[in-house]
Amino acid sequence: VSPSKCGDYRILLPTQQLANAKTIVVQAPDGLKHVAPCVAHLVHEHAPKARVYIHGDSSFGACDLQYPQLQATLDPDVIIHLGHTPYPKELAHPRLEPAERPRIVYARALSTRRPPRAAVARAAEMLASHGARRVVLLSTGQHTHLLPWLALALSRRGLRVRVPPPSPPYFELGQVIGCDYRLAAPADAYVIVSGGLFHALGLYLARRRPVVKIDPYRGEAIDATPEGEKTLRVRLYKVAQAMDARRWGLIVGLKTGQYRPWLVDRLARALEAAGREYRLLAYETLTVDSLRNIDSPWFEAFVVTSCPRLPIDDFAGYEKPVLTPGEAVMALRGELEPYRFPW
Amino acid sequence: VSPSKCGDYRILLPTQQLANAKTIVVQAPDGLKHVAPCVAHLVHEHAPKARVYIHGDSSFGACDLQYPQLQATLDPDVIIHLGHTPYPKELAHPRLEPAERPRIVYARALSTRRPPRAAVARAAEMLASHGARRVVLLSTGQHTHLLPWLALALSRRGLRVRVPPPSPPYFELGQVIGCDYRLAAPADAYVIVSGGLFHALGLYLARRRPVVKIDPYRGEAIDATPEGEKTLRVRLYKVAQAMDARRWGLIVGLKTGQYRPWLVDRLARALEAAGREYRLLAYETLTVDSLRNIDSPWFEAFVVTSCPRLPIDDFAGYEKPVLTPGEAVMALRGELEPYRFPW
Repeated sequence: VSPSKCGDYRILLPTQQLANAKTIVVQAPDGLKHVAPCVAHLVHEHAPKARVYIHGDSSFGACDLQYPQLQATLDPDVIIHLGHTPYPKELAHPRLEPAERPRIVYARALSTRRPPRAAVARAAEMLASHGARRVVLLSTGQHTHLLPWLALALSRRGLRVRVPPPSPPYFELGQVIGCDYRLAAPADAYVIVSGGLFHALGLYLARRRPVVKIDPYRGEAIDATPEGEKTLRVRLYKVAQAMDARRWGLIVGLKTGQYRPWLVDRLARALEAAGREYRLLAYETLTVDSLRNIDSPWFEAFVVTSCPRLPIDDFAGYEKPVLTPGEAVMALRGELEPYRFPW
Repeated sequence: VSPSKCGDYRILLPTQQLANAKTIVVQAPDGLKHVAPCVAHLVHEHAPKARVYIHGDSSFGACDLQYPQLQATLDPDVIIHLGHTPYPKELAHPRLEPAERPRIVYARALSTRRPPRAAVARAAEMLASHGARRVVLLSTGQHTHLLPWLALALSRRGLRVRVPPPSPPYFELGQVIGCDYRLAAPADAYVIVSGGLFHALGLYLARRRPVVKIDPYRGEAIDATPEGEKTLRVRLYKVAQAMDARRWGLIVGLKTGQYRPWLVDRLARALEAAGREYRLLAYETLTVDSLRNIDSPWFEAFVVTSCPRLPIDDFAGYEKPVLTPGEAVMALRGELEPYRFPW
C-alpha cells in the first residue's frame, strides 16, 4: 500500500494489486469525485501501460459497484473503489462482487481534516446537557483514524468513552455506514465523526438516543438529536398513513449490493398475508421523478428494498407513503413501536 | 403478435415469445412509462406463472437496454422493450444485446393519435413558404403507420412526397431515431411526424434543409427550421471555442448500445496527432451535475462518444465546449464546414 496525498485526503492505494492490469477504472462516491483525477494519475504512475478510466457515474457506497455494466463494456481488470470498505455480504445477494473479473480493489481515502479542540469541548457540553455519561464514539470510513485521539479528548472531560473495535463485517474501528449501525453498542448517547447529517440521522433512527456530530470539514459540533427526533416523527406519520394502503408498489433494487431477493419475498408474503395487493417495480436509480413516472392512482403506498435511506432522505415529501422494509412491517402489523430501522 | 390497447397506444406484443418465461421485465422509455403497468398486466395474462417486474429506470432507446445489471440481479428470461425497434448493430459494440439470457423482445407501441387535416394543410403551407416541391416524409417509431395516409394528403396539395421504404437496419418505413437519419434521402425539405422538437432538430442538423414537424399529440404543424438554424449556430460556436483546447475529456459510454471503442480509439488518435492531451472518462448516465463533479481547470473541452444528442440537448449551456464526435473532428481540423452530424 502506497500512501499519497490527493487534495485533503491521504489515499491508501494497494498498488501491488495493479500489476499487469491493462484496463483500470477509478470509481469514487460523489463527495470524493474531485480527487478521482489525482488518483487516476497515481494509478497511471504505478501501472504506466494500463488504460485508466475515471468513472463519472454516482456511486453511493460499496453496495453500488456497477460492475455488470463495466464488465459488459470496458471489461476492466481492476475497479479501484475509493472511499468505501467492502459492503457487508449478509446485506446483499451473492452477486455483490464479480466472481472473476474485474477485481475490486478498495482504496481508503483518509481525510486530513481534524476538528479543533473547541468543537470537542462543545460536543462534551452537548453530551452533558443530555445527562450522558457512557458514550460510544463512531465514524464514517474517512475519519476512523481520528477516533483514538477523540476518545482521549472526550474522556479527559469526564465521559466514559467506548470506541467499538473492528468487528466483522467492518474492518475499521467504530465504522458505520448509512444503512448499518450494528457497531453502535448500547450507550447513554453517541458521538459520530462525519460530514453532513446523513450518518448522524441514521444513527439516531437506529438507537433513538442523543447523537452529537463532530464535523471535521466545518470544524464544529452539532447536536443532531432534535433533527433525529423530527425525522422519527415524520417516519411514524408515514407508517400510520400506510396502515390502510391496499395496493402497494414493492420496489426491487438493481444495484448488485442492493438486490435483496429474500427481503422482497418476505415482504411479498407479508403483503399477501395481510390481504394487500402489490406490483413489482425494479429500479437501479430510484428518484422522485422516476417513481412519479410509473405512479398511478392504483398505487397507495410503496416499500423500497434497495437503499433504505431513499424513503427517509429523498421521499419524505412524496405524495404517498414510501417506506423502508422495517416501516412496511410496522404498517402491516398496525404497530407504531418499536421503530424498526432499517430492515 | 397480440394487439391490445394501453392508454393512447396499440401495443404489439409478441406473446408467443413469453411462453415458459419465469421472470419477465417490462421496460419503456420515459414517455411511455405510464403505459408500462398496463403492458405488465397484458404480459401477466399471457404468462400467468411468470414474475413480472416493471423497470422504472430511464431508457433512452434500444441503445439503452441495461441488460447487464438486470442479468446480474433479477436474471430475467425476457426483457420486453417497449416503443423502440432494435438498435443498428453497426453503431454499437457487439455486446449491444446479450448472447443468451435474457431474450430481448421488442414490442411496438403505436400511437392512436392522428393529426387533424388542418395540421396537414398548415404543413403544406410551411413547405410552400420554403419553396419546397420534393419532400421526404419521416417519423419516429410510434407513428410510422400514419405515413401512407399523410403522403397521400400532402401529395394532394401538390407536393412530390417520398416515404423511404424499410431499409436495414430499420424495419419500419420512414423511421428515424435521435442519432441516425440515414433514411432521410436528399430532398428540398423534410416532414417529420413526432412529438417534441428532439427528432426534428436532429433531422435539421443531419441535412440542413427546411424541416416541418407534424405533432400528433398536440395536433399541430410546426416549422422547426428556425430552431434548427439556431441550434446549428450554437454548435458551430462550440466547435470554434474548442479549436484551441489543449486538454480534453474523452467520454466513453457504459450503456451497451452506446459503447463505441472504435470511435474512442479514432478520437484518441486524432487528439494525439493534433498534439492534444486527454483523459478518459466513463459514464453510463452523463448529466451536467455528474460532469461538473469531475471537471477541473485541467479540462478545456469534452467530446462525448456515447449519445451524440447529449452535447446538443443537455450541454449547450455548459461552461466549456462539450462536443459530438463529428464536431470534435471539425475542431481538431480547424474547420467550420461542412457540419458533421453526429459521428
